[in-house]
Amino acid sequence: MQTDLESLSVSGFRAAGLAAGIKKNGKPDMALIVADDVCVAAGVATTNQVKAAPVLVNAKRLRSGRARAILANAGNANAATGLQGIRNVEFLSKHLAAKLGCDAEEILTASTGVIGEQLPMAPMSAALPKLAASLSSDGFAAAAHAILTTDRYPKAASEMITVGKRAIKIAAFGKGAGMISPNMATMLTFVMTDAAIGRTALQAALRSAIKPTFNSITVDGDMSTNDTVLVLANGRAGNEPLRPGTRAFNLFHQALTQVLGHIAKLMVMDGEGATKCVRIEVHGARSEKDAVRVARQIGNSPLVKTAFFGEDANWGRIISAAGAAGVKFDPGKVDIDFDDVPIVRAGIAVDDPQREARATAVMKQAEFTVKVHLHAGRSATYLYTSDLGYEYVKINGSYRS
Amino acid sequence: MQTDLESLSVSGFRAAGLAAGIKKNGKPDMALIVADDVCVAAGVATTNQVKAAPVLVNAKRLRSGRARAILANAGNANAATGLQGIRNVEFLSKHLAAKLGCDAEEILTASTGVIGEQLPMAPMSAALPKLAASLSSDGFAAAAHAILTTDRYPKAASEMITVGKRAIKIAAFGKGAGMISPNMATMLTFVMTDAAIGRTALQAALRSAIKPTFNSITVDGDMSTNDTVLVLANGRAGNEPLRPGTRAFNLFHQALTQVLGHIAKLMVMDGEGATKCVRIEVHGARSEKDAVRVARQIGNSPLVKTAFFGEDANWGRIISAAGAAGVKFDPGKVDIDFDDVPIVRAGIAVDDPQREARATAVMKQAEFTVKVHLHAGRSATYLYTSDLGYEYVKINGSYRS
Repeated sequence: MQTDLESLSVSGFRAAGLAAGIKKNGKPDMALIVADDVCVAAGVATTNQVKAAPVLVNAKRLRSGRARAILANAGNANAATGLQGIRNVEFLSKHLAAKLGCDAEEILTASTGVIGEQLPMAPMSAALPKLAASLSSDGFAAAAHAILTTDRYPKAASEMITVGKRAIKIAAFGKGAGMISPNMATMLTFVMTDAAIGRTALQAALRSAIKPTFNSITVDGDMSTNDTVLVLANGRAGNEPLRPGTRAFNLFHQALTQVLGHIAKLMVMDGEGATKCVRIEVHGARSEKDAVRVARQIGNSPLVKTAFFGEDANWGRIISAAGAAGVKFDPGKVDIDFDDVPIVRAGIAVDDPQREARATAVMKQAEFTVKVHLHAGRSATYLYTSDLGYEYVKINGSYRS
Repeated sequence: MQTDLESLSVSGFRAAGLAAGIKKNGKPDMALIVADDVCVAAGVATTNQVKAAPVLVNAKRLRSGRARAILANAGNANAATGLQGIRNVEFLSKHLAAKLGCDAEEILTASTGVIGEQLPMAPMSAALPKLAASLSSDGFAAAAHAILTTDRYPKAASEMITVGKRAIKIAAFGKGAGMISPNMATMLTFVMTDAAIGRTALQAALRSAIKPTFNSITVDGDMSTNDTVLVLANGRAGNEPLRPGTRAFNLFHQALTQVLGHIAKLMVMDGEGATKCVRIEVHGARSEKDAVRVARQIGNSPLVKTAFFGEDANWGRIISAAGAAGVKFDPGKVDIDFDDVPIVRAGIAVDDPQREARATAVMKQAEFTVKVHLHAGRSATYLYTSDLGYEYVKINGSYRS
């Protein structure tokens, strides 16, 4: 897997990014991806009851399974903006479609930033011609920078697979650092591939790749109004169309999952104020649903997350969070390990004078695993979470200003 | 209602508090309440799957509905301590019962502090005789101080009612500042009353008084292993025993709710690092369950709580949190008010150039209300929550050290 911005180019795709003046600090805030050919398109978006205008418009447009371009902006989420928000998306799409010589319905859009304010239409409209004029096959780095909000860095990943002697590339970039929670977060990720694949197969591959990646991360337990993952497949690789159930489809699905997994993990590592990326593993739950509930209760607990920040091996907070998940288990059977250090056996602390020192050593790492075994069944899951430090408060106490 | 520590004395009850050496900083950490007569006792405790040893032992002892004393300690939660934790409670009860001349089964206990460590039995046993010897009818202030952990101050409230010309007093003190969440938190509250009341009636009054008080507050969404509310009623007021359905019982229940409500609100105001106490009101939900889910999603959202801390009228985070609650409503109908300032009408920002300034003025107060109307039904609820600032991180990043 390649993870640098320079490896994002895919045959038949061009991109651009620039500062249109949506962000007050003058940083890049508008991005465009255009495919030379009409693409097969798939997407998944937030399950929040309050959906941003671009999410609502995409849902309609994705029904055709066809798209030519993705227009994205940072600095304004176009969420909780009512009918005017939808009209603004339609206006920008129409304007851009005229420039690109395609149908407005073939343009997908995404926004991220402050909720509840209308898009600044004058500077955005004025920027469109310049954005279209600067499209190039190496414009993905600029596009990746133009979708960032509180992110410290853009997130990119790409993978190559070979199917019947044809090389297929999958390249993706994304953003996300706060309001990150399972079931899609304030994150945008755009995937370009030259694979030949039908829309049903592409949507199936995407849905299945989301679960162990974007739906297995949390920064603050807040689910956003704008979360969007879009995939465009232009078929240029010339492979036999990928069909579910075949080895070739599985290879594609696996590569897509790896690419999305890398970007998802980068979102946790770049979590607002985060200094650690902790993998919470839950084993021995009675059902997968139980395992997920316990993992999320632990991964979203402010007490657990501040203890991670303080490198304090306070396992009592972990077992207490597990107990608060509304899931049945016998506390007297629970085992907890930090990486390979046994911390709790059968519900009580391991009697080892070195335990505390060894646990603290594990926590001093930037990445480690907390493994909780409930011994109540056979289901397991994992979740990546960040720690909670002063920077999170600093960033979010004054985000809009 | 009286809220000072000096008003806690109730006829027939004595109390004491001292530093036994459980806390490393030498502050008071053991408290004792003793009734001269055998009392009718009632209690409610955490629903966490991981229950502290005193919670497990109380559950058994409360079946008789009789008690003589409450022994409490801070600095160690005696949770996740297995069979040894239970044996330690039994040992201390037996030792104390011998001193008091009662049965060990008539002693209720409560602990708060670090989870996962065994009680330091030597200093605690050594302190018991001194604790018993210092019992007095004005020892409640000392007892209230001896159960604090990260609290900035003790919480007290008392109320007088008159039933059939007999004056009845209800006095309570409690602690709680972190790991505070609906369905009982790391909070302990002890209620003394001289009312004559049967055990079923007392338990019913307590259960019903918990819902709008301790189950309607949150600091960090973490539910503790130790949460305990205990009531002792010694009957000294000489009233006709209070029976559910009567005006006298309702009067008692109302006074009990007011006393507990005051202490619950103090816990939010004393929330770890808190600078604000915000009342989240949810109206127009399809069911009470829906209303509670929305209120908790808002009240526990780190993004909402950091915006409260930053006095940033970022209502987008509030509507986004509401949308993430897994509850059905039409975002295009939602109204939001900060105190009496309309912020959102029909899902979008109120078009008023003064809105932002007026909203910020509301948020500068130490207490204010955020009212969310879903217009989806007729159910409503409220929840008190704190803000999330640097101090929370400071306190919890190094609690054990």
